[in-house]
Amino acid sequence: MSAAIQFIRGVDEEVVPDVRLTRSQDGSKGRAIFYFENPDIVQAGKLDVMGMYMLDEEGELTTLDVNAKFVNGKPHAIEASYAMNSEQEWERFMRFMNRYAESHGLGFSKA
Amino acid sequence: MSAAIQFIRGVDEEVVPDVRLTRSQDGSKGRAIFYFENPDIVQAGKLDVMGMYMLDEEGELTTLDVNAKFVNGKPHAIEASYAMNSEQEWERFMRFMNRYAESHGLGFSKA
Repeated sequence: MSAAIQFIRGVDEEVVPDVRLTRSQDGSKGRAIFYFENPDIVQAGKLDVMGMYMLDEEGELTTLDVNAKFVNGKPHAIEASYAMNSEQEWERFMRFMNRYAESHGLGFSKA
Repeated sequence: MSAAIQFIRGVDEEVVPDVRLTRSQDGSKGRAIFYFENPDIVQAGKLDVMGMYMLDEEGELTTLDVNAKFVNGKPHAIEASYAMNSEQEWERFMRFMNRYAESHGLGFSKA
């Protein structure tokens, strides 16, 4: 299987996000912030998003920290935040992220 | 040591590049294209760049495919290309790239 992101189980979100990464100096805590501009889920008018699921060959990562962003009173974007609380969680996330980046044409750029 | 990129041995380039990644479907070949806008090396007037050196705790990766880009006849940017010819080379490069991204505040975005 290739890496995918879903807001609804079984339905891949096709819009590819920008992803900002932050990490504490000692490496023990980290955060990834996903920004989806006008994603399928918003275009479909679904705003009762409960979670974001990141799937790859190793399994699934989940965050419930998902918020709609509004422009002129209309939903426009989705921002999701994924927290990591150990070196192991960071490394597991980076394995997902590298697979996702590779299969979705993401590169690296200054946040 | 933290990950670094150098055009002159011993001198870290402080300008952080955008990096585009491409990979063949079967994973056997890949390429990373680095774009440095107005890097130190150009600001310093040095255009006889011979190579780009990527250093981290595992050692050094090198490419000699480094070119200056000109705008209105003046050097403005450096583009460097790093070719990978096996799964192992790709994985080694991604370990460097993840370390460099982490220490230089790079995120993921659509190329």
